[in-house]
Amino acid sequence: MNNLLYTICALFVFLSSCNTADKDNPPHQNTTAMEKKKSEGPLVCAKQPMAADGIVRLSKIEVYPQHLDEYMKYAIEVGEISLRTEPGVLTMYAVAEKENPCRITILETYVSSEAYKEHIISEHFLKYKRGTLHMVKSLVLSDQTPLNPASQLKNFIQ
Amino acid sequence: MNNLLYTICALFVFLSSCNTADKDNPPHQNTTAMEKKKSEGPLVCAKQPMAADGIVRLSKIEVYPQHLDEYMKYAIEVGEISLRTEPGVLTMYAVAEKENPCRITILETYVSSEAYKEHIISEHFLKYKRGTLHMVKSLVLSDQTPLNPASQLKNFIQ
Repeated sequence: MNNLLYTICALFVFLSSCNTADKDNPPHQNTTAMEKKKSEGPLVCAKQPMAADGIVRLSKIEVYPQHLDEYMKYAIEVGEISLRTEPGVLTMYAVAEKENPCRITILETYVSSEAYKEHIISEHFLKYKRGTLHMVKSLVLSDQTPLNPASQLKNFIQ
Repeated sequence: MNNLLYTICALFVFLSSCNTADKDNPPHQNTTAMEKKKSEGPLVCAKQPMAADGIVRLSKIEVYPQHLDEYMKYAIEVGEISLRTEPGVLTMYAVAEKENPCRITILETYVSSEAYKEHIISEHFLKYKRGTLHMVKSLVLSDQTPLNPASQLKNFIQ
């Protein structure tokens, strides 16, 4: 009888812990965990919902050719850290023109103007800004309105 | 003793079923189901992986002001249908400049040149192209290279 009760208790604890594990990792976090296992790369943090004063922006940057390689490193680093650590940064997706890689466009999405303000005083942004100031020939910040509010982007690090 | 065994069995079945429910709906599907329930809108189809000849493009379109409202409807429709039905279309994210909404940029991502070829002969694309030809003042297709290959976008309809 004691053995039976012991087995039951062990079974109960085992099943409860299996179940609790799922509760501790809701579906979205489970997906993230799967992505982590698959990619073994850095993850993005949970994101806040878009507020009424959210910002969708195309930042258009022209870099001096002699600084392009170094600029890329700064831009990749600040993009990754912002996505990984800032709940208010939804996208930070940077592309360079094939015809002229010195012309860079970054699709930046912030959930609110407050999130943007936090971004530009963050340590990683200031490192990028100060480190690349002399590399940037021109910078145009062009705020945008999505044509279709139902069309959403999720930016993640794979 | 019988009562005890009955209770144990009931407990076992209950805990197993709780656990099985999560197994039947893997995390990713749970998320999708949640998105579906939340949005009750059209979903995007499963997407193919990016191939070596994949295309990341910024299409820059200027629309005649008198046709802007009508153009928007065509652009939203073709974007939604492409995302929902084409496994080779990863993003079709359109934005308009706040300062001049006639200037539209679409971030288009195709998994391969073949996927792009299929897109431009699709019924929905041809409807858009033929329907908006007289509305478009200028069109520039600017192919891009993502700065950070690890930074990925998922475009979906919410």
